[in-house]
Amino acid sequence: MRVDGKPYRSIWRETDRVRIIDQTLLPHAFQIVDLPELDAACYAIREMQVRGAPLIGATAAYGLAIALENDPSDIGLATAYAALAATRPTAINLRWALDRVSTRIRSLQPDARAAAARMEADRIAEEDVAINAAIGDHGLEAIRAIAAKKPDGAPLNILTHCNAGWLATVDWGTALAPIYKAHDAGIPVHVWVDETRPRNQGAALTAWELGSHGVPHHVIVDNAGGHLMQHGLVDLCIVGTDRTTATGDVCNKIGTYLKALAAADNGVPFYVALPTPTIDWTVADGVAEIPIEQRDAREVTHIAGADEAGKRQTVRLTPAGSPARNDAFDVTPARLVTGLITELGLVEASAAGLAAIRSAAA
Amino acid sequence: MRVDGKPYRSIWRETDRVRIIDQTLLPHAFQIVDLPELDAACYAIREMQVRGAPLIGATAAYGLAIALENDPSDIGLATAYAALAATRPTAINLRWALDRVSTRIRSLQPDARAAAARMEADRIAEEDVAINAAIGDHGLEAIRAIAAKKPDGAPLNILTHCNAGWLATVDWGTALAPIYKAHDAGIPVHVWVDETRPRNQGAALTAWELGSHGVPHHVIVDNAGGHLMQHGLVDLCIVGTDRTTATGDVCNKIGTYLKALAAADNGVPFYVALPTPTIDWTVADGVAEIPIEQRDAREVTHIAGADEAGKRQTVRLTPAGSPARNDAFDVTPARLVTGLITELGLVEASAAGLAAIRSAAA
Repeated sequence: MRVDGKPYRSIWRETDRVRIIDQTLLPHAFQIVDLPELDAACYAIREMQVRGAPLIGATAAYGLAIALENDPSDIGLATAYAALAATRPTAINLRWALDRVSTRIRSLQPDARAAAARMEADRIAEEDVAINAAIGDHGLEAIRAIAAKKPDGAPLNILTHCNAGWLATVDWGTALAPIYKAHDAGIPVHVWVDETRPRNQGAALTAWELGSHGVPHHVIVDNAGGHLMQHGLVDLCIVGTDRTTATGDVCNKIGTYLKALAAADNGVPFYVALPTPTIDWTVADGVAEIPIEQRDAREVTHIAGADEAGKRQTVRLTPAGSPARNDAFDVTPARLVTGLITELGLVEASAAGLAAIRSAAA
Repeated sequence: MRVDGKPYRSIWRETDRVRIIDQTLLPHAFQIVDLPELDAACYAIREMQVRGAPLIGATAAYGLAIALENDPSDIGLATAYAALAATRPTAINLRWALDRVSTRIRSLQPDARAAAARMEADRIAEEDVAINAAIGDHGLEAIRAIAAKKPDGAPLNILTHCNAGWLATVDWGTALAPIYKAHDAGIPVHVWVDETRPRNQGAALTAWELGSHGVPHHVIVDNAGGHLMQHGLVDLCIVGTDRTTATGDVCNKIGTYLKALAAADNGVPFYVALPTPTIDWTVADGVAEIPIEQRDAREVTHIAGADEAGKRQTVRLTPAGSPARNDAFDVTPARLVTGLITELGLVEASAAGLAAIRSAAA
């Protein structure tokens, strides 16, 4: 997507240089970082300069390719694999990408490995872009159908939660892909961006993405969406998901469930966008079966932002003696989901709907 | 309620000195401020050292008494009235308190006015304490009934939103009064404190109040309550309300509606505590009829907290180019409210329930 008119991806290669955007500095500074060696790739993943499962996977794949340029031996491969795998131990996509590149190059002679790894990393990145573009196209159809019912020229108000945009993938994003497609197609979209406490990915990343690409939007607090829906100010919701059950329950950033409840109470369509590889076919009841990560309470008690000089500052919000609890995700039951927007098309959020695409799903 | 074991009110008189707690410094510093003259009382209301309708009313009443000590003439009275009324032009309770004191003392000789005004301000404060204590007693019955179903010694988890505590009233609070009564009665309560973006009254004030009085609690982000309810971690909710319709709809801090939806979806009782003078008998449909104040977008885009040295700092959270929208309240329809806890007892949130107490209501 565009930043000040120029197209970017969240990770890209310029001949033999791999570059990323340092997302820890957003939205207050836009800084491009080179990944010249293994350590830089490990640092980028561990310190969350890159985040989002698809982007972490692509960065790990490129990280392996970069490491093999310096040491293409079996020991070099094993060392780089171990270092990258340790950066975010619970990120499934990270291991998947490392395994895919390793399998591809293991049988090659050492001097052929770096180039082959680079090509495989390119392929991983391109496949992610293609999946997200397809999600965007299918979501665009849903948006067109809703836009057709609005008076000519009236903005179509879409609410989103967290960041499921191009910064979390290689390009397009998942939940934001249909929005970019609609905007680029001339549909007058306007986005309500939930700030998404405690990590504020909406206020920091989604707002920055949308603004940089020129998509009209307002940031709102997570408390506001229900009120806006009560007053007819939301035409549809689109969110992402970290994990989708075989029955269509979706596990996404904490607070998603509350917006889905409000959408159902007000007759607002509630769509969830996802690549089919994130469907967990082994889980039937999301609320009962999916364990929810509890993160550091400091994410609730403290917050970072930019002071008047633009310098990053962290401040405490709560009394020193007050503990906090920080559940990272919640589960929205399938009954509250209007439809799943996948790269294979729009799917009903139900066991039957998902079973119908299972054989075609990646 | 107690601070470090010592009982406090949010405003009190020590012979001829009127004192308040500077709430703008909470939760990072506990500082008592004297109101020696009219200007200090005006400043306290305008700069929100005191906030909450009942406390604003009491402060205005004391402010008038203080002014009359220096100038008890008719002109002095009119000047002080005008200055205090202008501090928060939309605060209905402020004018009500000023009118009540003025009416009480206008016919007196100037040299008798200050003492009479002080007594009337005392009465306003005592009446508020009595109303809130009664709300606490009636809410305690509801809490006892729910606690009776829990295993012996298991904590009773109560979720609250915003600050409807003793800091917003003269003592006890409205939503927090039943919680203090339950805690003081030895019921093992634990409170989930919604941080309540954008002004963070929960994280700053409710957490500080509860902690200072010794009530166990955790601060959570506004996104978390639904997830906790899905997992049986909330036994009941109690919130306050700024305005209640004749049909039982409640207009309270933005985000209240989302918690009420989650409570209904999970069979969690959702109580609203209020003094009956805040019932607006002229309104039947809260969502359609109550205009919602839109406040400064800067409350969303920026946030203040304490840095490591304890100094207050304000930081920007959003991209410089991203606008924000800031609706201050939302309306929770009566169908989502389990009961209204008033000083007259527990009332059904319906036209019939409220009509039954109308003649007794203040």
